[in-house]
Amino acid sequence: MLFRQLFDAESSTYTYLIADRTLKQALLVDPVLEQVERDRQLLNELGLTLKYCLETHIHADHITGTGKLREITECLGIVPENAQIACADRWMKDKEVLQLGNVIVEAIATPGHTDSHFAYLVNRKAILTGDALFIRGCGRTDFQSGDPGTLYDSVTQRLFTLPDETLVYPGHDYRGHTVSTIAEEKQYNPRFVGRTPQSGSLRDRSEFITFMTNLNLPNPKKMMEAVPANEQCGNV
Amino acid sequence: MLFRQLFDAESSTYTYLIADRTLKQALLVDPVLEQVERDRQLLNELGLTLKYCLETHIHADHITGTGKLREITECLGIVPENAQIACADRWMKDKEVLQLGNVIVEAIATPGHTDSHFAYLVNRKAILTGDALFIRGCGRTDFQSGDPGTLYDSVTQRLFTLPDETLVYPGHDYRGHTVSTIAEEKQYNPRFVGRTPQSGSLRDRSEFITFMTNLNLPNPKKMMEAVPANEQCGNV
Repeated sequence: MLFRQLFDAESSTYTYLIADRTLKQALLVDPVLEQVERDRQLLNELGLTLKYCLETHIHADHITGTGKLREITECLGIVPENAQIACADRWMKDKEVLQLGNVIVEAIATPGHTDSHFAYLVNRKAILTGDALFIRGCGRTDFQSGDPGTLYDSVTQRLFTLPDETLVYPGHDYRGHTVSTIAEEKQYNPRFVGRTPQSGSLRDRSEFITFMTNLNLPNPKKMMEAVPANEQCGNV
Repeated sequence: MLFRQLFDAESSTYTYLIADRTLKQALLVDPVLEQVERDRQLLNELGLTLKYCLETHIHADHITGTGKLREITECLGIVPENAQIACADRWMKDKEVLQLGNVIVEAIATPGHTDSHFAYLVNRKAILTGDALFIRGCGRTDFQSGDPGTLYDSVTQRLFTLPDETLVYPGHDYRGHTVSTIAEEKQYNPRFVGRTPQSGSLRDRSEFITFMTNLNLPNPKKMMEAVPANEQCGNV
């Protein structure tokens, strides 16, 4: 398997390129519109055919590159089953598996940041957590039908139950981290783990909800542009 | 082995945390002053003792975190043998090996960006190329005793001669790439490989020198501050 983490500095978004080296077929998770040319060039140089673009969710902070990549490569655009994206080619179900040669991608429904968010487990070794779980953080829950209680359940029941050594590759990072593990996040993620009274103990669901409800963050700069564009597969 | 790539967004610098999981001992390559608290927290959370901070060279675009980390952790600051850093604890020689449990770091003299630049080969699998070789690029050669002919020789004779599958982890990236391979850079790095007349053929040394000599880049914003500070191990 070939695995490449790619970064969009403007939106601090990670895109993931995953490919079967023998088949020479690839998929991208959460491509960014402004990086399509970079990604296309890398695919070409590596001799890879792009088969799928997967979205973890409908993004509010950047426009997806899926629409443009689909025009260029004829790949399929795949989204979570509840995502209201009429132009998608395929909707994945919870626990559904997408296979590309020796690359096995399992969808894990992880709503809360949005109501149709999926994480993707790659070869049971790495989990692409989108905006459900960041390294020592998590996505906000105050728009796009977000719900903090739902996010708490997704992270604690669907992600923290993965094997400790599973590598965590987030949808964003704002401090320069690239990867973590489930063990680390279960022990040190301050959104989910209390430092007092017992370090390492999970926060109560109600405590998490109160914290997330009181974040009072400004809306993402591109939100009014990005959400409608992403509902059109990024065709702007 | 534990291997973590860390990013400083302001200077687009990659720092590398490498550790022996059993010994619980770590080294950092090219730490950044503004990220010392992030790095210290990560070391603490992973239960790692910092033994060494290695510099690939005297940086002109950011101030090293080595001095501050040395105060906090009592690690040793290690620099290339020709680097004029009187406060360093140790000067590595070309081909010298630094061992930390099952982590083997081999120094590879790769001058040209500066006159005392080293790359570090980790367990013969990954090469930390500093500013000698970037993903599809290379460091500039127009100050700090840089020399384009010397850089050409370093990259083509010391780096491109490594096994094709060696992972390339650069000191910077400005387009969101995180990793490459020697095979890829030998084939697609536009600074060293001509697209015409024969795609994939190495550029002449003289062609590279002419190109690098005519880049006419502005000086790095922090240069006047960073170089003297780094000659003092980042103690500002």
